[in-house]
Amino acid sequence: MDNFTYYNPVKIVFGRRSIAQLPRLVPAGAKILLTYGGGSIKRNGVYDQVVAALKKNPPAEFAGIEPNPRYETCMKAVERVRAEGFDFLLAIGGGSVLDGTKFIAAASVYKGKDPWDMMFNPARVPADALPIGCVMTLPATGSEMNGGAVITREATKDKLAVRSSHLFPRFSILDPETTFTLPPRQTANGVVDAFVHVMEQYLTYPADAPLQDRQAEAILLTLVEEGPKALAEPWNYVVRASLMWCATQALNGLIGCGVPQDWATHAIGHELTALYGIDHAQSLAIILPGMMQQQIDRKRAKLLQYGERVWGIRDGDEDARIDHAIERTEEFFRSLGVATRLSDYDIPASAVGIVAERLEKRRVPLGEHQDLAKKDVEEILSLRV
Amino acid sequence: MDNFTYYNPVKIVFGRRSIAQLPRLVPAGAKILLTYGGGSIKRNGVYDQVVAALKKNPPAEFAGIEPNPRYETCMKAVERVRAEGFDFLLAIGGGSVLDGTKFIAAASVYKGKDPWDMMFNPARVPADALPIGCVMTLPATGSEMNGGAVITREATKDKLAVRSSHLFPRFSILDPETTFTLPPRQTANGVVDAFVHVMEQYLTYPADAPLQDRQAEAILLTLVEEGPKALAEPWNYVVRASLMWCATQALNGLIGCGVPQDWATHAIGHELTALYGIDHAQSLAIILPGMMQQQIDRKRAKLLQYGERVWGIRDGDEDARIDHAIERTEEFFRSLGVATRLSDYDIPASAVGIVAERLEKRRVPLGEHQDLAKKDVEEILSLRV
Repeated sequence: MDNFTYYNPVKIVFGRRSIAQLPRLVPAGAKILLTYGGGSIKRNGVYDQVVAALKKNPPAEFAGIEPNPRYETCMKAVERVRAEGFDFLLAIGGGSVLDGTKFIAAASVYKGKDPWDMMFNPARVPADALPIGCVMTLPATGSEMNGGAVITREATKDKLAVRSSHLFPRFSILDPETTFTLPPRQTANGVVDAFVHVMEQYLTYPADAPLQDRQAEAILLTLVEEGPKALAEPWNYVVRASLMWCATQALNGLIGCGVPQDWATHAIGHELTALYGIDHAQSLAIILPGMMQQQIDRKRAKLLQYGERVWGIRDGDEDARIDHAIERTEEFFRSLGVATRLSDYDIPASAVGIVAERLEKRRVPLGEHQDLAKKDVEEILSLRV
Repeated sequence: MDNFTYYNPVKIVFGRRSIAQLPRLVPAGAKILLTYGGGSIKRNGVYDQVVAALKKNPPAEFAGIEPNPRYETCMKAVERVRAEGFDFLLAIGGGSVLDGTKFIAAASVYKGKDPWDMMFNPARVPADALPIGCVMTLPATGSEMNGGAVITREATKDKLAVRSSHLFPRFSILDPETTFTLPPRQTANGVVDAFVHVMEQYLTYPADAPLQDRQAEAILLTLVEEGPKALAEPWNYVVRASLMWCATQALNGLIGCGVPQDWATHAIGHELTALYGIDHAQSLAIILPGMMQQQIDRKRAKLLQYGERVWGIRDGDEDARIDHAIERTEEFFRSLGVATRLSDYDIPASAVGIVAERLEKRRVPLGEHQDLAKKDVEEILSLRV
């Protein structure tokens, strides 16, 4: 087990009707800017609940933060924050809205020239940010309990991450009832997203961290059990609550304590999303099986453990058990309705070279050994054509 | 799953040589009072490491906080804090030292007449406390990542708990190497303590919280695997690190999110410790098997799940599987060298009536249904004579 620091001060307020607690969570007298995306929060009643809860201190609003939130959109909000002097940002929606809001919170007080310089730049981690809170309506990204955000710059098709302790929400309200009306595609995407978040922190090499392994497996097993139920019974509170808590636990830092992490699936997936416009979770469902296959020898011990503990695979020789585990993973994604091949999304085979090229140029260290080469990325993608 | 709020702002600094990070964790210019127990931290080098780390801001010291920390002792420290104006308390040692320090931190700024009035008193939860930090050298109580403390009033033999968000340590340093030299009895006690902390939050009734169940089982499985190794190989870093992280995770609130909790084993055990002077973990090892047996029908579903997932018990009818699960639990404690019968500690059978009587007078709600009667307590204790 490696040395680690764990610090996560987000207050989680979880359960039915928890939006009503907003007045005691928002700082008294705050000048609030509500941030959200499209109209779904207006259709499902969440917007009305928020406005009703804040009727004594009505917030201003900034709408239109899109999936894979764009730098260009966020900068419009930054202008408003600076011009109108908001001192609290309240994000309502899914991970994209919250990620965008985190960027706005940091960019609004950024002292340098272009806030984009904070992205994936260890030298310019946000040193300050406006306080934010959120009402999370889509279990998926885990953004509600971490200090990270992923932003896309439309002009250059760059999709990059930023991370800082200043980006932790002060509070996150999670009411599973707000997820009853999610379209099946978003429900399924959320399950895949949370699943792959766990795998990025788990499927590396044995690191003498038996508790963290089992905590990761706890989430995977629950996602496997509950994910399909959410599609079959969208109004089942217990199922929705379990998935919501899984998504939060998958990326709040806990299962990553003291262990190596991979994140190459995400890095490759981000390029696919930025270039071809597929959903984030779709990109992960394409790449992960290829990552498992191409890294089969380096991830051997963990693949065997994963197969046994998550899928109950105990029969056959090692190679057969690993093949079976990879098959089960891909089948799971497909059973949720998330396709797993580039061709399923009409992405041409030329993507293999283009993505590998872009990643090479980024000089992003890839994989738990930080040594995946262009050739490896090409091989992974070639397995997914 | 019940509604819940989860908030835990403790910064955990975990790993080898982490004590050296003290200077950047303690507030600059703080007037620090070091609190500790007996001489073990002087013998094992921890005291020297702390003093060396703080050499630019040497702390004052208060020694002599005993196991099952006493109100009477803590109040002496409170006098010193008030007289000398310390503004940061740094606890070094195990859960008892930290619990005592939490009480000192709250009592030093308590506005009422007698700080003891805060104990187990929902009307007088500490509304403020001095900031504290800790260097934890004994994995057991989980106090390093929660806002609770248990204090004993020697004069009346009362052992009671207090809980407040003001009692979270600002930071907790966990260096597994500081536990290499623990006596086997303390190592074993720590494993039992952490194990029973999990059971209090897990072994109730099914509560539609599959992730929390599996997170609890993750800790139990790891304790079962790693506990015996710590006794066999006390200098094994990986084992010590795993146990230390298990103890923290067992009582930082996470596995208790949204689920019913029991805590009757602790309540009964506290009386045994206060009256007969046995170790806290010894009292738990005595009571838990009796609790499982006496509550067999009410805890049936969870006992079966526990038997299957923690001990792999799948054969036999329900009653046989449950009996087996209870046996395995008691055997596990005994295998660690922790005896499980009142008679093992020369506690007379008269304890049955005396403890039941005391608990009835306390009017403490007992069990996950908060309805255990005097008769139930007598039955549980009678099973453990």
